[in-house]
Amino acid sequence: MSSEPEKAPPAPEAGVPAATVSNKQRKRDARKAEKAAKYAQAHAQQKPAAEDPSPEHEKQKQQQPAAAEDDPSAANYGDVLPGEILPAAVPDGPWAEIGHLDTAAAGRSVLVRATAQAVYRGSKTKNVAFLKLRQGMSTVQCVLAGSAQMALFALSLPKESIVVVEGAVALLDEPLSYTTVQEVEIKVRKLYCISRADPKLPISVEDAGRSSAEFAKAEAKGVPLPRVGQDTRLDYRVIDVRTPTGQAIFRIQHQVENKFREHLSSKDFIGIHTPKLISGSSEGGAAVFKLEYKNGKSACLAQSPQLHKQMAICGGFRRVFEVGPVFRAEDSNTHRHLCEFVGLDAEMEIMRHYFEVCDIVDGLFVEIFRHLNENCKRELEAINRQYPFEPLKYLESTLRLSYEEGIQMLKEAGTEIEPMGDLNTEAEKKLGQLVREKYDTEFFILYRYPLAARPFYTMPCYENPAYSNSFDVFLRGEEIISGAQRIHEPELLAKRAAEHGIGKSSIKSYVDSFRYGAPPHGGFGVGLERVVMLFCGLSNVRLASLFPRDPQRLSP
Amino acid sequence: MSSEPEKAPPAPEAGVPAATVSNKQRKRDARKAEKAAKYAQAHAQQKPAAEDPSPEHEKQKQQQPAAAEDDPSAANYGDVLPGEILPAAVPDGPWAEIGHLDTAAAGRSVLVRATAQAVYRGSKTKNVAFLKLRQGMSTVQCVLAGSAQMALFALSLPKESIVVVEGAVALLDEPLSYTTVQEVEIKVRKLYCISRADPKLPISVEDAGRSSAEFAKAEAKGVPLPRVGQDTRLDYRVIDVRTPTGQAIFRIQHQVENKFREHLSSKDFIGIHTPKLISGSSEGGAAVFKLEYKNGKSACLAQSPQLHKQMAICGGFRRVFEVGPVFRAEDSNTHRHLCEFVGLDAEMEIMRHYFEVCDIVDGLFVEIFRHLNENCKRELEAINRQYPFEPLKYLESTLRLSYEEGIQMLKEAGTEIEPMGDLNTEAEKKLGQLVREKYDTEFFILYRYPLAARPFYTMPCYENPAYSNSFDVFLRGEEIISGAQRIHEPELLAKRAAEHGIGKSSIKSYVDSFRYGAPPHGGFGVGLERVVMLFCGLSNVRLASLFPRDPQRLSP
Repeated sequence: MSSEPEKAPPAPEAGVPAATVSNKQRKRDARKAEKAAKYAQAHAQQKPAAEDPSPEHEKQKQQQPAAAEDDPSAANYGDVLPGEILPAAVPDGPWAEIGHLDTAAAGRSVLVRATAQAVYRGSKTKNVAFLKLRQGMSTVQCVLAGSAQMALFALSLPKESIVVVEGAVALLDEPLSYTTVQEVEIKVRKLYCISRADPKLPISVEDAGRSSAEFAKAEAKGVPLPRVGQDTRLDYRVIDVRTPTGQAIFRIQHQVENKFREHLSSKDFIGIHTPKLISGSSEGGAAVFKLEYKNGKSACLAQSPQLHKQMAICGGFRRVFEVGPVFRAEDSNTHRHLCEFVGLDAEMEIMRHYFEVCDIVDGLFVEIFRHLNENCKRELEAINRQYPFEPLKYLESTLRLSYEEGIQMLKEAGTEIEPMGDLNTEAEKKLGQLVREKYDTEFFILYRYPLAARPFYTMPCYENPAYSNSFDVFLRGEEIISGAQRIHEPELLAKRAAEHGIGKSSIKSYVDSFRYGAPPHGGFGVGLERVVMLFCGLSNVRLASLFPRDPQRLSP
Repeated sequence: MSSEPEKAPPAPEAGVPAATVSNKQRKRDARKAEKAAKYAQAHAQQKPAAEDPSPEHEKQKQQQPAAAEDDPSAANYGDVLPGEILPAAVPDGPWAEIGHLDTAAAGRSVLVRATAQAVYRGSKTKNVAFLKLRQGMSTVQCVLAGSAQMALFALSLPKESIVVVEGAVALLDEPLSYTTVQEVEIKVRKLYCISRADPKLPISVEDAGRSSAEFAKAEAKGVPLPRVGQDTRLDYRVIDVRTPTGQAIFRIQHQVENKFREHLSSKDFIGIHTPKLISGSSEGGAAVFKLEYKNGKSACLAQSPQLHKQMAICGGFRRVFEVGPVFRAEDSNTHRHLCEFVGLDAEMEIMRHYFEVCDIVDGLFVEIFRHLNENCKRELEAINRQYPFEPLKYLESTLRLSYEEGIQMLKEAGTEIEPMGDLNTEAEKKLGQLVREKYDTEFFILYRYPLAARPFYTMPCYENPAYSNSFDVFLRGEEIISGAQRIHEPELLAKRAAEHGIGKSSIKSYVDSFRYGAPPHGGFGVGLERVVMLFCGLSNVRLASLFPRDPQRLSP
């Protein structure tokens, strides 16, 4: 068996901006529906449309607004009634997963609920329609050849409508190229629409998911494809994330978080939750969102769980991690800043040296990278198809360079850095490039930063307090993780806070926490979205945030 | 070998309020230190204090402020130098875990870093001191008998100081009762103080951790023990959570969250993160925290991830969960309300009936309960010791009662309920009691609530719109989980929002999400702290929040 619509989805439809397509589509749909009714009346077929017209079918027929009263297949298609999740005629599962359909399933009868991503009219045979059904990242072709009325009903479905299909899995002679299930298709016996999408969608999933190769090809042909701008994407995020890339990114994000938790749990860390409503700002200088709390108190939104995760260490938990939102009221309109993001934080007792924290970072991230490469192949391919990137280069044992070595490398390459300052974005990028050339890695640790470049709670180096027991970690030339040993001596901590202009009263309970016996400790923090962005070589952190928040955007 | 301090920790010290003890203690410490110096000068012993006085030891000696210049054991104890994590004389591990010390370890030399929970003077032998060391939930006895000076140094340590001990594990003739390691002790050769606690602690770990049995016993003897009030506990939370109960509660919380994620992941849910800064309130009526966002916009703190987790379903993710903070600006000063808590949320496509959501809740919670009972025995015992409770009664397959059945049961028991209203706290408690008596379970689902009692986005029952496709779940007579099918039809959703007085503009992007093809779906939400509180039969949700936030409390 072999059936396929016009090989490539019709070019004009794909090539015209969504709004235009949809307006036309709407008219076309109306024409189709009209035609369907006429067709049904004129050519009422007498052969039974499907086997087993059981009483349920009859009942169904009465409930369904059939295309025509005298259509014997009328019970096999239609819209569900209001309040119905599924027509009574459809058995209660088992439900097939599109992603699991393969040659082994051929011949089987299946029941599928999915999104109708596209509907095509058959080109070779009359009265045949094709549906491209989607579930998550998987798509399958469905063919409707049994009933002309049902085919017309299918053709009336707006893209992105939710449908239920019952049919038989059939082998194809030639593999398909436009669906992820390529060896088989579903020969539809029943088709019901569960949720009818607006005929006019603000953006189309196909447009939002086009690859750079598609753009280049169309460009070369002189029929450039419409590009969906970032703001439009984010305005209609619920459609935008239906693309293979959108689906893939958040599956990868889920895996990163799972591995973060699993790995640290296996190292005796426990997950905690610290308050996001706090009485003082947690990071001194950085911009903070303020609000009115209760009883005349004012509160800040935590810019990190820094103070409270340290207090958990003082509370005797020894090793803790937290996954939670952090809030930054910064006016940074860059590709890598958000006003709200998900912080992955850890804090642990240090027994002798803060490199113990680096050891955890090293083992954790090498594990995450390995896991993603081994277990998210499909997701990485989907992203790579739309936004091509090179797999991350990293070493099994993460490279560690001192800050001084780093600025020496930059100096030798002609980039002069203030030795007791911090690296700017450009210098970070440059250093990333130099390290990649010299050490063949895009993931490394830079340690022993100048104290002046770090927050007040960072432990100074004992032998030279101009430096600190701290580190940053770089991924593809961008700083991604910050870590350090913290000051656990209350007097030194109070002194350093004062030097940073932080009022005593705002951090009193924090500083006092170290007066009741406090173990030496350190930790690190990293943004979940940045890990995903940089591992996948994405150009913008917004792609890795489900509903991103930046100075301009507070919705959806 | 057998060595033990005065059997019970000295009564007066334990029985007197912390502040008083500490003042006395401070004076006593000063006297001790003075005495130690005098003692050391007068009785300088000539025998070598420890084997292997290596060059490191010599170096150490010079660095350490020894009790006396001529004390040959001086290198074996003392405070670390500022900036030092550990004296150079101490090997770099391996570090022993107190919880792992057992008879098999007898004879071995170990290195331990821990908290000095208590220090006792030996009663039977002169110049002997005992340390009770603590790591997390484990405690061990250490005996210092080698050097009178070292014993004096130990006696000078304020409670809760962090120390490093090197010594040999020794079998005890009689098991100890005041430590969790009962068969062995550590014979200390070296003792260093890493972080000296204030001699005057605001509360003591012993006082904060006393059981009701201890209180009753002391009461009976006519020497009542000091009780640490809730506010004092929360003000000094970093000390309060060092008790076995405090440690246990947050280990259980970690396990609940882990199981929640694991179980749902195994059912093809993916973890997402939705924004906490949103443009409108997410739950209509409930009190909301407002703040100024950027560029003149005002924002709300999400009262639940409700709207965005539904939008994730519209985004094609099919089954999602989220663990994250939720914010309620309610003036509820009860044992079960917080202004910020951790929400465990899930949302999923429904294929035929909202009982599919109940099935997930059922399987998930039965799994969590089983896991806690099997894997957190020690934690549950620790809590039970301080706050006695009966193990939760639950069924392998969770009982489901309709709301109508519920109010009928109440009616028969003499409690009249407005049939189309909601249950109040008292009625919930009563129903919990009736269900326990009749069905022998403290965990059940009550479904098909009157529509009027549910939020605007709840799907009405099709056959009787006065009811809704919704449910609550009860644990020990308290409502803990709320769930329902949601309205996925945009027109009905807009209509219901309007009926609840919710402005169109504030939820436009939410309602619009259902115009692009939306599958029938439902979900549920539950507070992590409440699960822990009710499973463990705790009297107050604050015990299950690391740093609780209520109308009165915004710190620490």
